[in-house]
Amino acid sequence: MPTRQVVKINPLNAESPLEALQAPVTSTALHYVRTNFPIPSIARAQYALSVTGAVAESRSLAYDALRHMPQHEVTVTMECAGNDRLGLYPLPAGEPWRSGAVSTATWRGVRLRDVLDMVQPHDDALEVVASGADRGPREDADSPHDVTFERALPIAAARHDDTLLALEMNGETLLPEHGAPVRLVVPGWYGMANVKWVTQLRAVTEPFTGYFQRKRYVYREHTGERAVTRTLVKSMIVSPATDVTLKAGARCVVKGWAWSGHGDVARVDVAVGGGDEWHAAELDKPVGEYAWTPWSFETPTLQPGRLVLRSRATDTAGFTQPDVAEWNALGYGNNAVRPLVFNVQLT
Amino acid sequence: MPTRQVVKINPLNAESPLEALQAPVTSTALHYVRTNFPIPSIARAQYALSVTGAVAESRSLAYDALRHMPQHEVTVTMECAGNDRLGLYPLPAGEPWRSGAVSTATWRGVRLRDVLDMVQPHDDALEVVASGADRGPREDADSPHDVTFERALPIAAARHDDTLLALEMNGETLLPEHGAPVRLVVPGWYGMANVKWVTQLRAVTEPFTGYFQRKRYVYREHTGERAVTRTLVKSMIVSPATDVTLKAGARCVVKGWAWSGHGDVARVDVAVGGGDEWHAAELDKPVGEYAWTPWSFETPTLQPGRLVLRSRATDTAGFTQPDVAEWNALGYGNNAVRPLVFNVQLT
Repeated sequence: MPTRQVVKINPLNAESPLEALQAPVTSTALHYVRTNFPIPSIARAQYALSVTGAVAESRSLAYDALRHMPQHEVTVTMECAGNDRLGLYPLPAGEPWRSGAVSTATWRGVRLRDVLDMVQPHDDALEVVASGADRGPREDADSPHDVTFERALPIAAARHDDTLLALEMNGETLLPEHGAPVRLVVPGWYGMANVKWVTQLRAVTEPFTGYFQRKRYVYREHTGERAVTRTLVKSMIVSPATDVTLKAGARCVVKGWAWSGHGDVARVDVAVGGGDEWHAAELDKPVGEYAWTPWSFETPTLQPGRLVLRSRATDTAGFTQPDVAEWNALGYGNNAVRPLVFNVQLT
Repeated sequence: MPTRQVVKINPLNAESPLEALQAPVTSTALHYVRTNFPIPSIARAQYALSVTGAVAESRSLAYDALRHMPQHEVTVTMECAGNDRLGLYPLPAGEPWRSGAVSTATWRGVRLRDVLDMVQPHDDALEVVASGADRGPREDADSPHDVTFERALPIAAARHDDTLLALEMNGETLLPEHGAPVRLVVPGWYGMANVKWVTQLRAVTEPFTGYFQRKRYVYREHTGERAVTRTLVKSMIVSPATDVTLKAGARCVVKGWAWSGHGDVARVDVAVGGGDEWHAAELDKPVGEYAWTPWSFETPTLQPGRLVLRSRATDTAGFTQPDVAEWNALGYGNNAVRPLVFNVQLT
């Protein structure tokens, strides 16, 4: 039985194993988990979502109230902004993610827009701040040192048709590590926007400056800072698995996924070995509007020794995976082309 | 039984496995092998070394003639110039070496200087060109397309006390894959200078411009080209092995090697995790004047999850391993700091 690969046990941070990523939709038990603090335990009977701030009328919504509103479903490839941090040089501090902090799941819940319509945000509302129930100390926080996980979403993204307050994941009631009872799902955005254990929504008229908005999840570069928002175009190879010995004298069908938060996947190219010779892979239908696109490529006949494969995706917005990611101090958004190494043997 | 890790089977290119690199001197059977062409088969009885060019008197030396000259011994850490090519982005063409194209061996043979003294190179001799018996086609060679592996050594390096024509390796007669019957050993230089199957030495008064001098083994950068010569300062972690699960709640003693072709190892620093916090490792006595220096470092108590370790060597010439190696088109001299990832579990 494959299990998640633990990156940190407390608080829990764990990657999806490759076996799980070979499926179009990742099994719930193997979906990657990223937490900043201990997982809050919230009984559904006690749960309340406070919707407040720059609104006509504040509301408090019980779990059952959300459950009885119209439900919508969306299949999303979600990636941690720190995925592939281990590929950045010099290695930034932060969880040392390899390539498994990405997964795909089908989420079901209430449109955030429907909830906002109930409270009628003021016309000058700029963002919706979602607060999780998770909190804890952070040495570099302004006093007080305990901070809550809170993230602001621009009002347009909050009002988007497919931004959900999810109650279910892959057809089952949400699990604690995935944000039970209720989490935000923001298709196309890196994981940090998908606030878990969300207990408060607050419309604000000024840009939010909380710890996780300004001290974390920013591309801190030599030239300044930019917010981490949508998922950058990326691809991964999931078959063959790198621990499998390939057979010399045969061709090999390489399979993988590609995704982007900026548009659809326009093309994927594959390189066999080093150098600059790229070949177009074949694309199949995406797993969902916001989920990854499967691709495949057949190699030439394999020679015994070491085989290196690289894949490179391009999205319809015109972005292509770079050879080297822009280094940033906190290590986010590494979508660089990554060589995978395979062993080829004569049988 | 550990075996060499084959990178290419024909011609043979293979790395030393980690188990073999945990010993101060690498076992002969597991010393890395880099070849450009099929391994020549040369009977010792038929062997002759032609020493010619800008010399007072050309000579041809039989194997036995070399064997009866004074023998010297030197222990050398030898590294392929392409070692860690897989860590360069974008990945250059060429053998996709990981970190095992480095090994340490004790070589025994004749001083190249003693042979040169027999033929008396002219005062204006600039270089000594060593030709191997290995040859084959190269598409990008000037016509004719068949090229011989030949490398020039500056006369001063050729005359150095410890530059040998080696007949033995680790106390045994040289094996075919390591250059039998006779190979050049040039302590402190990358592998390509250590010409195998050497059958001719030629003193020249103009800079040599052969294929392997000008079309290969050059740092081809955006700004121009530089020759690949001495080994850049580097370190590697050999214990714990990355496939071993470490025990949470205990400290861990990290061990490794550091080497440089530009001087002695002055210091090694270790970082536990990402970021910029480095701690001095303890150095022990080098394995030989031209062999790697052992170092060790004790981590703090390990937490369950993923542990990342990095080591960074500095030599007495003042060179330190960089965070990112200077990219070059042929992929040589990657001595950048390399993060190693370990799994830590509660028992």
